[in-house]
Amino acid sequence: MRALTYISPNHPPALVEVPKPGLEKATDAIVKLKYTTICGTDLHILKGDVPTVSKGRVLGHEGVGTIEAVGAGVSSFKPGDTVLISCISACGTCDYCKRGMNSHCNNGGWKLGNTIDGTQAEFVRIPNAENSLYEAPDGIDEKVLVLLSDIFPTGFECGVLNGKVSPGGTVVIVGSGPVGLASLITAQFYSPIVIVMVDGDPHRLEIAKNLGATHTASVEDAAEVVKAATNGKGCDTVIEAVGVPASFHQCQELVAPGGVIANVGVHGVKVNLHLENLWDKNIAITTRLVDTTTTPMLLKLLSAHKLPTEKIITHEFSFEKIVQAYEIFGNASYNKALKVLISF
Amino acid sequence: MRALTYISPNHPPALVEVPKPGLEKATDAIVKLKYTTICGTDLHILKGDVPTVSKGRVLGHEGVGTIEAVGAGVSSFKPGDTVLISCISACGTCDYCKRGMNSHCNNGGWKLGNTIDGTQAEFVRIPNAENSLYEAPDGIDEKVLVLLSDIFPTGFECGVLNGKVSPGGTVVIVGSGPVGLASLITAQFYSPIVIVMVDGDPHRLEIAKNLGATHTASVEDAAEVVKAATNGKGCDTVIEAVGVPASFHQCQELVAPGGVIANVGVHGVKVNLHLENLWDKNIAITTRLVDTTTTPMLLKLLSAHKLPTEKIITHEFSFEKIVQAYEIFGNASYNKALKVLISF
Repeated sequence: MRALTYISPNHPPALVEVPKPGLEKATDAIVKLKYTTICGTDLHILKGDVPTVSKGRVLGHEGVGTIEAVGAGVSSFKPGDTVLISCISACGTCDYCKRGMNSHCNNGGWKLGNTIDGTQAEFVRIPNAENSLYEAPDGIDEKVLVLLSDIFPTGFECGVLNGKVSPGGTVVIVGSGPVGLASLITAQFYSPIVIVMVDGDPHRLEIAKNLGATHTASVEDAAEVVKAATNGKGCDTVIEAVGVPASFHQCQELVAPGGVIANVGVHGVKVNLHLENLWDKNIAITTRLVDTTTTPMLLKLLSAHKLPTEKIITHEFSFEKIVQAYEIFGNASYNKALKVLISF
Repeated sequence: MRALTYISPNHPPALVEVPKPGLEKATDAIVKLKYTTICGTDLHILKGDVPTVSKGRVLGHEGVGTIEAVGAGVSSFKPGDTVLISCISACGTCDYCKRGMNSHCNNGGWKLGNTIDGTQAEFVRIPNAENSLYEAPDGIDEKVLVLLSDIFPTGFECGVLNGKVSPGGTVVIVGSGPVGLASLITAQFYSPIVIVMVDGDPHRLEIAKNLGATHTASVEDAAEVVKAATNGKGCDTVIEAVGVPASFHQCQELVAPGGVIANVGVHGVKVNLHLENLWDKNIAITTRLVDTTTTPMLLKLLSAHKLPTEKIITHEFSFEKIVQAYEIFGNASYNKALKVLISF
C-alpha cells in the first residue's frame, strides 16, 4: 500500500510503498482510510522535535475510514462500518483510563503516527479498537468528521473545559489556528459574554469573527482590547493555542484574578512564569494532552448540527498529492490554510 | 500606645509610641491585642520586598484580642468579646467577596500591617469588622488561636484545597516551616495515603514526622523518596511552601501526570516553567492569596480538638521584647523556631 513516512529531521516526508498492516491482537481493527488530514504536530515531527518518531514511521493521527477487519475481541465494529479514528488510543482498563486520562493510558495514549504507524496511509492498524474508534453518525459529511479526531476534542478539553468557560464569563484565545478556532466554537456551548481572539494574521481573525468572536486583536493590541472588554480586569479564561514562550508570556498578562490559563499549545522549550506577579492572583495554569473523552459528546453536537465546522477545512488534496499538501500547510498563513483535507 | 513600626529596607523595626487608633467608619472595630505573632511576610517587608508598606506603618496581620469599641454598623461583636483577627479584611459585598475571593476584596484584602496599621501594637483598628473578625470559641487556649489568623487558612486553602488532596492520594509538601506544617496537618482531613515532607532542616522534618508525615526527605533526596513512595509516578498533590525558584522547580519534578502543584510560597522573582515537559502531563498549577473563607471551618475543628497546633508555637515573648523576637524568628532554623508568640 501507499503511505507517507518520516525520513529524518528537516527532510520532507516520503510517499512510498509499504506492507499493508494486518491484525496483531484480538483487540485490533484494520481501517481503510477515506480521509485524513495534517496536524501542526506532524510539522513538529518533520523538524525532529518528537524523538519518539523513528525513521520509516507512517505519519498521521487523524482519520475517517471503513473497517476492513476486526480481531476476535472487537464486538462493537464490523467490516464495512464507517468510523472516526481518535488520535488517542485507549485500553479502557488501566488506572489512567479509569480516571478519564486516556492520553496517559498505560497501553495507549498518542501512538498513531508516533510510536506505531499512522493514518496517512491507505490502511491503518488501530489497537484497542473498542475504545479508539467511533461509529460515524448518520447523515454527516464524512469530510468534516475528521476534525473530531484531534482538533475539536483538543480545543474543547484542553482549552474550554480546563479553562472553566462559564456563562457570563470572559475568554481570550491566543492563537486563531485550527485548534484555537475549535476552542472558539466549543467555548460558545457555555455562553461566555466576551471572547477575544488574538492572532497575527488578519485573515484568521476575520474567520474568528464569523465564527462568534466578540472581539479580535493583533498580538500587539491584545492587552488593550482585553482591558477594554473586561473593565480592566483581564479574562476569566485565557487559552494558549500557539505553543511558544511569547504567547504563554502574553497569557500571563491577560488573566483576571481568579482566572485560568489553559495551555493547549505544544511547547518545545521552557517559559518564564512570573510568579512574582501571579502568586497572589488566585489563578490556575493547566496543561493537558487531549484525552478524547468528549468525542461522544462532540459527535452528538455534530449530528445535531450544533458544531459549525464548515470554515475550518480550507484545502483538499488527493492522497497522491499529500507531500504538496504538507507544503501548503507548512506555510499556512501565506496560503490562508487552516485544515487541509486528504481524500483517498 | 506602643507599636512596632517599619522604618526602611534592611533596617530593624522600631517599637515606638504612636497615637491609639479610633473608630473611623461605622463598620470598624477597635481591638485590644492579647496575642500576636510574626509572619515570614513581615520579614519580606523588612527587606523592602513589599513596596505598599510605607515608613511608620505598624506591622502585623495576625492577632487575638478583646473588642474595645465597635462602630454603629457592627452588630455581631460588642466590647469585651474575645476575637480572632483575620489577616484578610473583607467587605462581604463586592463581586470578589461574593465569589469567596476575600483576598481580592475591592474594599479590603490584605490591609493590616500593609496599607493600614496592623496588629503588632497594643490596639488595632479593624475595618469591615463583621467579615474580618471571628468570635473566639469557648474552652480553647487563646494562644494557639492566633495560628488561625493566617497560617492555618493559608496552608489549608492555598495548599490542601487548591491541591485537591483526596482519599487515597499522594502528597508532597516542599517546605516544612509553619505554613508547610499547617498544610501537613490539614491535608490529613482528606485521608491521603502518602505525605512526604521536604526540608533542609532535620529538626523541622522530625516535627513533621510527629505531625503525621508518612515520609520525610532532604531537598537532595526528595525526588528519590517521592519516586519510591508513589511507584515512580510522582505525587497527585505537590505543595510549594517555600517561595523561591529552586523549590518551585523541584515541584515540577515531583508532580504525577494528572496532579496539581499548589503554590503557597510568596515569590519575589520569576521562575522557569518547564512546559516542554509539562504541556502534555495534564497538570494544574495554582496560586492563591489566602481568602480566609475556611476560618469558620477551622475554628470548628480547633474547638473539637481535631487541629493539632501544640508543636507550632516554639517561642514566647512579651510585647516589649518583640524586636528580639524578630531576631529569633529571622534566624528560625538556627533557633529551631516555628511560630513566635507575642503576649501583651
